[in-house]
Amino acid sequence: MPIFIYLSFMNVKLKPEKYLRYLYLPNLFGTQRTKEILSVNPTIIPQREEAKEVLVYSFDYDGQTIEEKRLSCVQDAFYFKTSNRISWINIDGLRKADVEAISTHFGIHPLLIEDILSINQRPKMDEVEGVLFCLLNMLYYNNTKQTVEQEQISIVLGKDFVITFQEDAKRDVFNPLRERLKLGTSKARQRNADYLCYTMLDLIVDNYFLVMEKLGDRIELLEEEVIRHSNKRSLARINQLRKELIVLKRNTVPVRDLIAGILRSESDLLDDRNTKYFKDIYDHIVQAIDLSDNYRDIMVSMQDLYINNVNLKMNEVMKVMAIVTCLLAPATVIGGIFGMNFDAIPYLHNQYGFWIAVGIMLIIPIWMIYMFKKRGWF
Amino acid sequence: MPIFIYLSFMNVKLKPEKYLRYLYLPNLFGTQRTKEILSVNPTIIPQREEAKEVLVYSFDYDGQTIEEKRLSCVQDAFYFKTSNRISWINIDGLRKADVEAISTHFGIHPLLIEDILSINQRPKMDEVEGVLFCLLNMLYYNNTKQTVEQEQISIVLGKDFVITFQEDAKRDVFNPLRERLKLGTSKARQRNADYLCYTMLDLIVDNYFLVMEKLGDRIELLEEEVIRHSNKRSLARINQLRKELIVLKRNTVPVRDLIAGILRSESDLLDDRNTKYFKDIYDHIVQAIDLSDNYRDIMVSMQDLYINNVNLKMNEVMKVMAIVTCLLAPATVIGGIFGMNFDAIPYLHNQYGFWIAVGIMLIIPIWMIYMFKKRGWF
Amino acid sequence: MPIFIYLSFMNVKLKPEKYLRYLYLPNLFGTQRTKEILSVNPTIIPQREEAKEVLVYSFDYDGQTIEEKRLSCVQDAFYFKTSNRISWINIDGLRKADVEAISTHFGIHPLLIEDILSINQRPKMDEVEGVLFCLLNMLYYNNTKQTVEQEQISIVLGKDFVITFQEDAKRDVFNPLRERLKLGTSKARQRNADYLCYTMLDLIVDNYFLVMEKLGDRIELLEEEVIRHSNKRSLARINQLRKELIVLKRNTVPVRDLIAGILRSESDLLDDRNTKYFKDIYDHIVQAIDLSDNYRDIMVSMQDLYINNVNLKMNEVMKVMAIVTCLLAPATVIGGIFGMNFDAIPYLHNQYGFWIAVGIMLIIPIWMIYMFKKRGWF
Amino acid sequence: MPIFIYLSFMNVKLKPEKYLRYLYLPNLFGTQRTKEILSVNPTIIPQREEAKEVLVYSFDYDGQTIEEKRLSCVQDAFYFKTSNRISWINIDGLRKADVEAISTHFGIHPLLIEDILSINQRPKMDEVEGVLFCLLNMLYYNNTKQTVEQEQISIVLGKDFVITFQEDAKRDVFNPLRERLKLGTSKARQRNADYLCYTMLDLIVDNYFLVMEKLGDRIELLEEEVIRHSNKRSLARINQLRKELIVLKRNTVPVRDLIAGILRSESDLLDDRNTKYFKDIYDHIVQAIDLSDNYRDIMVSMQDLYINNVNLKMNEVMKVMAIVTCLLAPATVIGGIFGMNFDAIPYLHNQYGFWIAVGIMLIIPIWMIYMFKKRGWF
Amino acid sequence: MPIFIYLSFMNVKLKPEKYLRYLYLPNLFGTQRTKEILSVNPTIIPQREEAKEVLVYSFDYDGQTIEEKRLSCVQDAFYFKTSNRISWINIDGLRKADVEAISTHFGIHPLLIEDILSINQRPKMDEVEGVLFCLLNMLYYNNTKQTVEQEQISIVLGKDFVITFQEDAKRDVFNPLRERLKLGTSKARQRNADYLCYTMLDLIVDNYFLVMEKLGDRIELLEEEVIRHSNKRSLARINQLRKELIVLKRNTVPVRDLIAGILRSESDLLDDRNTKYFKDIYDHIVQAIDLSDNYRDIMVSMQDLYINNVNLKMNEVMKVMAIVTCLLAPATVIGGIFGMNFDAIPYLHNQYGFWIAVGIMLIIPIWMIYMFKKRGWF
Repeated sequence: MPIFIYLSFMNVKLKPEKYLRYLYLPNLFGTQRTKEILSVNPTIIPQREEAKEVLVYSFDYDGQTIEEKRLSCVQDAFYFKTSNRISWINIDGLRKADVEAISTHFGIHPLLIEDILSINQRPKMDEVEGVLFCLLNMLYYNNTKQTVEQEQISIVLGKDFVITFQEDAKRDVFNPLRERLKLGTSKARQRNADYLCYTMLDLIVDNYFLVMEKLGDRIELLEEEVIRHSNKRSLARINQLRKELIVLKRNTVPVRDLIAGILRSESDLLDDRNTKYFKDIYDHIVQAIDLSDNYRDIMVSMQDLYINNVNLKMNEVMKVMAIVTCLLAPATVIGGIFGMNFDAIPYLHNQYGFWIAVGIMLIIPIWMIYMFKKRGWF
Repeated sequence: MPIFIYLSFMNVKLKPEKYLRYLYLPNLFGTQRTKEILSVNPTIIPQREEAKEVLVYSFDYDGQTIEEKRLSCVQDAFYFKTSNRISWINIDGLRKADVEAISTHFGIHPLLIEDILSINQRPKMDEVEGVLFCLLNMLYYNNTKQTVEQEQISIVLGKDFVITFQEDAKRDVFNPLRERLKLGTSKARQRNADYLCYTMLDLIVDNYFLVMEKLGDRIELLEEEVIRHSNKRSLARINQLRKELIVLKRNTVPVRDLIAGILRSESDLLDDRNTKYFKDIYDHIVQAIDLSDNYRDIMVSMQDLYINNVNLKMNEVMKVMAIVTCLLAPATVIGGIFGMNFDAIPYLHNQYGFWIAVGIMLIIPIWMIYMFKKRGWF
Repeated sequence: MPIFIYLSFMNVKLKPEKYLRYLYLPNLFGTQRTKEILSVNPTIIPQREEAKEVLVYSFDYDGQTIEEKRLSCVQDAFYFKTSNRISWINIDGLRKADVEAISTHFGIHPLLIEDILSINQRPKMDEVEGVLFCLLNMLYYNNTKQTVEQEQISIVLGKDFVITFQEDAKRDVFNPLRERLKLGTSKARQRNADYLCYTMLDLIVDNYFLVMEKLGDRIELLEEEVIRHSNKRSLARINQLRKELIVLKRNTVPVRDLIAGILRSESDLLDDRNTKYFKDIYDHIVQAIDLSDNYRDIMVSMQDLYINNVNLKMNEVMKVMAIVTCLLAPATVIGGIFGMNFDAIPYLHNQYGFWIAVGIMLIIPIWMIYMFKKRGWF
Repeated sequence: MPIFIYLSFMNVKLKPEKYLRYLYLPNLFGTQRTKEILSVNPTIIPQREEAKEVLVYSFDYDGQTIEEKRLSCVQDAFYFKTSNRISWINIDGLRKADVEAISTHFGIHPLLIEDILSINQRPKMDEVEGVLFCLLNMLYYNNTKQTVEQEQISIVLGKDFVITFQEDAKRDVFNPLRERLKLGTSKARQRNADYLCYTMLDLIVDNYFLVMEKLGDRIELLEEEVIRHSNKRSLARINQLRKELIVLKRNTVPVRDLIAGILRSESDLLDDRNTKYFKDIYDHIVQAIDLSDNYRDIMVSMQDLYINNVNLKMNEVMKVMAIVTCLLAPATVIGGIFGMNFDAIPYLHNQYGFWIAVGIMLIIPIWMIYMFKKRGWF
Repeated sequence: MPIFIYLSFMNVKLKPEKYLRYLYLPNLFGTQRTKEILSVNPTIIPQREEAKEVLVYSFDYDGQTIEEKRLSCVQDAFYFKTSNRISWINIDGLRKADVEAISTHFGIHPLLIEDILSINQRPKMDEVEGVLFCLLNMLYYNNTKQTVEQEQISIVLGKDFVITFQEDAKRDVFNPLRERLKLGTSKARQRNADYLCYTMLDLIVDNYFLVMEKLGDRIELLEEEVIRHSNKRSLARINQLRKELIVLKRNTVPVRDLIAGILRSESDLLDDRNTKYFKDIYDHIVQAIDLSDNYRDIMVSMQDLYINNVNLKMNEVMKVMAIVTCLLAPATVIGGIFGMNFDAIPYLHNQYGFWIAVGIMLIIPIWMIYMFKKRGWF
């Protein structure tokens, strides 16, 4: 009896892993991610958690000599101020006391200390009392969570020294710089502290492209998915990617202003010969922004495509259902006509009456199919 | 009889708390809120209601000494003009006579008096006759109504004094400043009146982030709701939030111009040493504007998501209905065929005729289900 | 017989006042209004209809004395040119001959005469040969037609005189100015002609807010209507309001440029002391533009809301229809099965056979309702 | 038999002039027009077809005398270079040889010759070697094709001469200028060659408004059509009009830059006294651009309106169909119940059994109609 | 039996080449193309594949003499640095060693070498140490793949020499230049190296128009397809074209900045007499950007059109199905009524009862058709 068809049909539909795929999508959309993106609060008193561990590394070099050290505490770095060589002090992990100690020693303005300790700051540059300060984010692509992660980095460029403050000791993008520094012939060794700062910014910005490449790969995969089997998950993914593009945009557009600020700056710390290097970063960051606009455009047409596909698929189903129902309707009517209990119904007692009726039941749908086809409705 | 199914089905649908949820949403959309947002009218003669109560507090301080007072009327504040210390006169509650009295005494231009007394002004700054004037709104988040509330504040910076005019005595954002002023070692005590003004603007702008954080939380909750069980209420909430974002935008974008105006200003009242502090506020307000643009983007994709979910859900229902109807149509036809009253119908007198007919009735839908599944229509 | 249900049902639907409400909306959308908005043609030879009546009023005053007159013709106003007092000549109604006569006498450039006589000009300011010229529109809200009406006004500021040309004698926004002029102590009396010009512009701009307040009220009413009972009329109203917002925008954005032009101007006619007053108008007009952008945003989300409501309502209806049809389909099939004329049909001769069949007919829909509810489809 | 209804119904639908209106719209959308709009190719070697006929007219005048001539060839115009009067040489029809001959004689730079001979150039102005060059398009509205047609015109302003190059001898917009030149008292006669150039530009820009007025009329008609009886043709028309607005925009926005270029120019050819005239054109062209933005906005809301109307109409039809089908479903079920062949069916042998059944068939739909109405579904 | 109709109908639908056309579109959408467009990564160490072959051609000329050579290696080109004639060295195929060798010899800065070797660079210009550097892309239209292909070209303009670096030896756009150089009378021969550089840029930009013309042709064809028989392939094509427009935009907008940079440049390498030539390119590139904006607009309305067409077609089908189903429903009911087994059914034993029933079955749909037509539902 059809009731079993019903039951089986309904039960099939009830299998949660299939059904839920369409209607409930708890973690898929990543509202947690929205929270992370939106929770930006650079209040004056930074509520930054103190780092568990603070690592201090230093490079002290000139054209001839180089000394690389792991220091036990920030105070050990104080003497670099008066070394005649160029010093790069890298501090991984931010603790209020440490940051304040070293900053005060190197003459960094309290406002900048606040910035270094703040969280979720907008990238910016500043020149305060003989020091050039850049704050921006290094971006990493987390393959597991498929998110863009950011780590704040502050770069303080002073006379003959660069101090960098990173949040996380586990990773940064400066390894190529470390390699080059060890080469006495590298330009980094021959030039001044501003060239060191340039190299850092250059590595950070170049790393953006690696992140964008990963995002580009995901966009491409997603586009293929949307085309082949659009389901609600696709829209969830489109939304997720859009959020990552927001993170990307938030980290690239202000960096353009940052570099433009350096280019406009008339600080004595910046050697005119190096302007072309910063201009080179500027070109790169502009290209990154352009590219992320392209990403955005592609995402928008992907969403259009998705909606269109879902509708087309749905329409296809509904159309077939409507056509089947419609094709069978005449047969129902004819069945009803000859099922009436009138005494006098023509052909009822005819030997071929039944076959004539069934024949009409067949001919009408066939003729309808022919008509529909002619109009291109299939 | 099916009529009872009908009745019960209909009655179930009629339960107002369920049905109305979809179609009538009287207060949910908050048209009242629209009225509040739109009723902006800075005409020349301000129709401000006179405050019921006017509270006047003063701080009179220099690096060594500080005096905090509650004054009984604005006239008591006149003598601060000639005190050699820095004075902060805070007036809670606006009455025309009082505002005019104190303004005239401190040499504030009549146009500024109009601004102070106006309602729903756009944030702005002005330099008129040796006085620097800032008008902006403090924002609070009302948890009950889930709206952004604003309170107008006027800050008048003169030589050695700051006068602030607030609408509402019950709350402001200056408590941290009061604490700091009482500390003789705080920078606020060491510096001039412009630093006092800076601290106020900074506190106001920082408070915007608290409001935005609350809005961010609501956006996140709303996003989860939209994903889990989109109903019409969700759209109402999206619309409400959008209105709050309009309020937010209206209060942040002009503040950027305000701070930029101060940075460009060449007033003698502003010490060059403090420029970096104002630049810091500028960075914060730019970040707030950026962030509210992000909010906006997220709201837009949330609305897309909502519409998509509603459609998907609806489509799902319609599809199942259409499929069920379609699956049963062949059985109806077969029933009709063998219900015809022709004399000669094959198998009619066959012992297994009935079972053959019922069998066909079952086989066709099963075959159809198989076909539909193959095409991925479930 | 069901045919009567049909007939009555159809006839009910045919009642034109109900049906037409949805499909034909002759005047509701106001295509006439579109014509008015679009017919802008500032060709060189203005095709302005000559005014039926020209009214000339004058105020001639200094700090001590004031003389208010109704003049019989424009020629009577000629002698004000040489009066040592400040003169305001207001001409209501534009006739080519009159405008040319007075303009030539007061040294107004022929190009400006063309502007004065033109229709549908874009607001603008100009400095030509010692004269400062402002052309803009006064806006009124027509409560009956619910449209924003505009009346062109030209203000010519010369040395010690202001001439205003209005189209319509019946109304203007200058009454508060007239009152103030009669007060010897008012600032308008104490200052020069440029202050008179400022007061006019200020009154015109302030009046924009009154118009916007009316529009704001309509937006609020409309929003409530859209939420409560969206019908096609709502969309018509949304479209109408959008057109009015176009009119508003067209009249406010260029006025900002006009005032900015005055602020930038280095004309001798403008006293530096009055700059702050013009800056005040500038702030107001910027706020008006901001606000009308907010209106626009709200209109857009209102339209989204409308479309969503219409779809939701439609979907609700279709869903119930589809569900009812679907619920009854199994009963039809069962009826068909036991209506077949096979000799051997089980239970056919059973005493309770009929009740078993009817029972199944009831159980299936009840079970379906249960399933649908479980899935949240009602 | 219902089959005939079918047939007639189908045939009615097949009438091509009705059916095709909806689905195939060969010429209606004007893809040909797209081709014309898109085929823009200002390559260095212009592939301009040589004009069949070249007409050369000249005006040679000063304040006292004027001489109007039709010249037989461009060489006849050479002597105007040394006439002491102001000369306007108008060349209708472009032939490479002619353009080069006269340009070389009058000292026009080869690059400008290329521009004159190019096709589909963007409007622009240039100052090259003592000559001021304007290239723009005259627009005409073709009532038959309902398109905006353009004719390129190059204006070369030199010392005491203006040479104009037009594509088409049949029409231009300079007749009012010709009239005015013949009047010795007209300003055109009294002033220098730059005033002549101004008058030309002014006439061209003013003519844009005539074209826009025609477009405005069409927009209005279209809006009425969309409101009254939206069909697919309406969308085609909206698309066509949008294309014309693209043509309009392409010809107005660069003209603003052209005029701005003249205003900024410090060429000796331009008398400072005439700046205000060019500023007047600038105001006009800005207004034209504003207006065409308004057109654009109205087109967008018209398209929204169209889509909404089509959907509403469709929904109305579907709703009625669904309701009718739904209303008749219970009757089918009841008919089925009493059509079953059980031995024991209550009321079957009752005298009024039939009427009771039919009565239930009627009561249920009536009750349903009542319920639906109560919910406002009709 | 209807089952065969079913089967045939289903099978017809299953023909993959028809069905898949709607739902699976593997290569059609070109996700591969997305990958190409998105993979932009100008990191510092270019991962450019070494060219298989490097071709070096040189032109060494002055007004009197010209020497064209194919050189065997880049080192052969070194002596051109000291030739007193103007030299154009064209290098097809990029190998790191070669590029570095020649660049070092001609004094090209290492940063520029990096740029030359980079891939997917954004077009840009730079002035570094007496050399003017332009990097941009030549565009070709690939008729087979229907894509816009790009080939990077670097142009280095020095004192009396131009060096061009191309990726691909097979094609470039400089053939007209080569022809002209061989003519002693051509301007290219008479002027300096900067004119040579101008000619190159001019040829590259002019070639953009050829590419755009091809794209324009495709847009036109696509528009016709969308109008005539919109299917899902159309949307795929719209998406493809949009991607090509992204490529186009990415290559034109920065070129405008490049040319603007040259115009602003005060380099000694640029002869003031040639400014007008570069200005001419500037005009062309602005026109190209304008035009590609127009393309974009047309694509957007094409997509609107497509969606509308798909919906209209679908609606048409659904409407007819719903109407047919609805028209037959009354006949089913009537059949059911007279099929009931009551003893007393009026007209059952009447001779014409059957015909009366069938008559009603016919009359009701006819009347319905009449009603529907009256309301314009067909």
